[in-house]
Amino acid sequence: MERKILLSEKEIPEQWYNIIADMPNKPLPPLHPGTLEPIGPEALAPLFPMELIKQEVTTDKYVTIPDEVRHIYSIWRPTPMFRAYNLEKLLDTPAKIYYKYEGVSPTGSHKPNTAVPQAYYNKMEGVKKITTETGAGQWGSALSFACQHFGIECEVYMVRLSYDHKPYRKVMMNTWGAKVHPSPSEATEIGKKILAEYPDTTGSLGIAISEAIEVAAKDEHTKYALGSVLNHVKLHQTIIGQEAIKQMEKAGDMPDIVIAPFGGGSNFAGLAFPFLRLNFDEGRNIRCIASEPASCPKLTRGVFRYDFGDTAGMTPLLPMYTLGHDFVPAPIHAGGLRYHGAGVIVSQLLKDKLIEARAHDNLEVFSAGVKFAQAEGIIPAPEAAHGIATAIAEAEKCKQEGVSRTILVNLCGHGNFDMKAYQDYFAGNIVKHELTQKEIEASIAKLTTPLIP
Amino acid sequence: MERKILLSEKEIPEQWYNIIADMPNKPLPPLHPGTLEPIGPEALAPLFPMELIKQEVTTDKYVTIPDEVRHIYSIWRPTPMFRAYNLEKLLDTPAKIYYKYEGVSPTGSHKPNTAVPQAYYNKMEGVKKITTETGAGQWGSALSFACQHFGIECEVYMVRLSYDHKPYRKVMMNTWGAKVHPSPSEATEIGKKILAEYPDTTGSLGIAISEAIEVAAKDEHTKYALGSVLNHVKLHQTIIGQEAIKQMEKAGDMPDIVIAPFGGGSNFAGLAFPFLRLNFDEGRNIRCIASEPASCPKLTRGVFRYDFGDTAGMTPLLPMYTLGHDFVPAPIHAGGLRYHGAGVIVSQLLKDKLIEARAHDNLEVFSAGVKFAQAEGIIPAPEAAHGIATAIAEAEKCKQEGVSRTILVNLCGHGNFDMKAYQDYFAGNIVKHELTQKEIEASIAKLTTPLIP
Repeated sequence: MERKILLSEKEIPEQWYNIIADMPNKPLPPLHPGTLEPIGPEALAPLFPMELIKQEVTTDKYVTIPDEVRHIYSIWRPTPMFRAYNLEKLLDTPAKIYYKYEGVSPTGSHKPNTAVPQAYYNKMEGVKKITTETGAGQWGSALSFACQHFGIECEVYMVRLSYDHKPYRKVMMNTWGAKVHPSPSEATEIGKKILAEYPDTTGSLGIAISEAIEVAAKDEHTKYALGSVLNHVKLHQTIIGQEAIKQMEKAGDMPDIVIAPFGGGSNFAGLAFPFLRLNFDEGRNIRCIASEPASCPKLTRGVFRYDFGDTAGMTPLLPMYTLGHDFVPAPIHAGGLRYHGAGVIVSQLLKDKLIEARAHDNLEVFSAGVKFAQAEGIIPAPEAAHGIATAIAEAEKCKQEGVSRTILVNLCGHGNFDMKAYQDYFAGNIVKHELTQKEIEASIAKLTTPLIP
Repeated sequence: MERKILLSEKEIPEQWYNIIADMPNKPLPPLHPGTLEPIGPEALAPLFPMELIKQEVTTDKYVTIPDEVRHIYSIWRPTPMFRAYNLEKLLDTPAKIYYKYEGVSPTGSHKPNTAVPQAYYNKMEGVKKITTETGAGQWGSALSFACQHFGIECEVYMVRLSYDHKPYRKVMMNTWGAKVHPSPSEATEIGKKILAEYPDTTGSLGIAISEAIEVAAKDEHTKYALGSVLNHVKLHQTIIGQEAIKQMEKAGDMPDIVIAPFGGGSNFAGLAFPFLRLNFDEGRNIRCIASEPASCPKLTRGVFRYDFGDTAGMTPLLPMYTLGHDFVPAPIHAGGLRYHGAGVIVSQLLKDKLIEARAHDNLEVFSAGVKFAQAEGIIPAPEAAHGIATAIAEAEKCKQEGVSRTILVNLCGHGNFDMKAYQDYFAGNIVKHELTQKEIEASIAKLTTPLIP
């Protein structure tokens, strides 16, 4: 069989899949932090276009992808699936390993899958400018690319630490015409206030979100966009898993285990939800595993309760697996996975034991990344290497047990902009990070938010 | 029609195409710099395995690609061809523009096309270690990747300036197990000698070549590898154009104009030679244009005569278009195109007016690169942007003349490791570089090498 399983552009799925329709227990509603009453979609109207708000709350099983979005998707989609023959050989495993490769997108990750429809719906509703935050820069790059296609102005608040350390991500955003501010910035009230108080701060994602929201809230032609966590973001990413099902069928195979890295949930949701649909609709038993960093283990060691989505406690309360909203993860290189909580859909699925989770130490992650690069040729982003670590662990288990299983992993992005991380690994500067039970309990104990009934 | 024209792995060509068989005037022989007598292939034996030497001088029209090489090619080949609909729209041109994208390879350029067979033939002949030089790092990365696959040790001498300025290329080579020395280094006699004399030197490709050759010449199990200029390198790259012909046929089209960037010639040869075969065999009139930097215009402003391949004058004398072997091009970002001469096959073809050449200023090149990134999503390497500049110029000519022509360009690599170049461009630090006729004449006037009879 060939290494690459390719689809034609005609095979780009025509609908996104909404797992909420099939969930036995629907996610609990978000609560107003003051009244503790459920809040409705109207609360989102100042920040998001109406069509995205509808998608956020819809219970329809499928949502049609606009032709214009499918047309832009075709710049890089369908993405290839690979059979990892070389990795299988390196591991000497009876397992069959496949990977779906999202790194072929213009920005090198899965993020444009949602950036493009978000920019599209904003355009349709006459929005002139979109603001957003970015940490490592993947999301900011994706939104810049998408906005440039629709002629929408894009303003990115980039955490000062990344702005200074990752200048090339900023250049990439500039190439697609975006304006990038180091955050905190002088461009917003909240930014000015923080700079006055802490002139030397390196910023945080929480601050950058506040700045982006402030700008969007002030102007009726400006909206805000988010790259993970929310339901509509997960919805858009299901394009990945739906293509993957077609590709597995083409290969005459079907995964026993589906694996993806886990930050806010959009990466995992993108690959896994369409396979979970097969479990729901066809009674299959496909195991879906979310791979998280041991230094930010909300799924494997967090609690399931209401918590804020941001550090400052300004969002609605969301029912999620969390480490506490002011938990500060170690500064690992997989910046995309450093988030204290899990999106509400994934949290409910984990609670209901419909998915699994697994945590990996940083050293194990980079060892997996290097093995993959040596065998398959692609140097994975540190985020992607978490999924590979789980895949390798499962393949080794197959070897020990003497059974063959089919494993599919989401290679969500390449590491071309992350070579500093590999440099640190080779130099021995990446160390095992032990997070004690005490530290986790201390962070959770600070929570005063409601428990899940 | 779809944007992407894809081939299956079964369609990877089974032979490389050797244009020498079809050339009306064969390239003149290399000369011994002392005796000025033609030299034979045996002179290459200490440095290259016998099979590559045979390929260097063969007059067979086709050379079979070993199955093992085709198997490794299948990691990234066949590479996709794209119809650049968005660029056509941006330029508002009646031209049809296609690009063949070599940036999907593990190292992000066309270089692995020859690195893999070179490593393979060395392995077959029991070679334990391969040495090479690298400037910007593309070739060093490709050879590291290839050697790692065959379990051959790889030692790269990287020009000190690039070693210091492009640490991430070094990390990439390390990821595939290569040892990278800044050149000049303490590891060789010539390196030590130069360091003693010029302790602060930033190195040069000429010095790095000398170091790599010194190490290879000293040990019978160690050989040397070169990433461009030589005939066998051009031969291996014809995989690009042969795939491209199949893809154009699949698209129901055929190019009027084929364009590729020009450094030593392997990139251009790779795409263009198989189309020139159609001119020879089928009497077609496909124009093939080599795109070079205005700051290093050997094809458009150089002379055709015997010259050395290296700066120090240690190689055989080669019949080539040259600016003089000690011509020092301006430090443009397209490091891969900063070479004083053209390979012998391409030189003869240009002399015989079977191909064309065109030079572009640096500012025009980056303007083309940004236009391409905005339209097509891929940020091109500065080398690749030269070809795009020619394609845009030809498409604009079509618009002026009101005719449609089909243009095919070799997008030889992505710019993910070249964002510093775009940063400089956006900051206004890239300026028009005027090379006067006097400067060129002065460099050529220094030559004492033989004229072509």
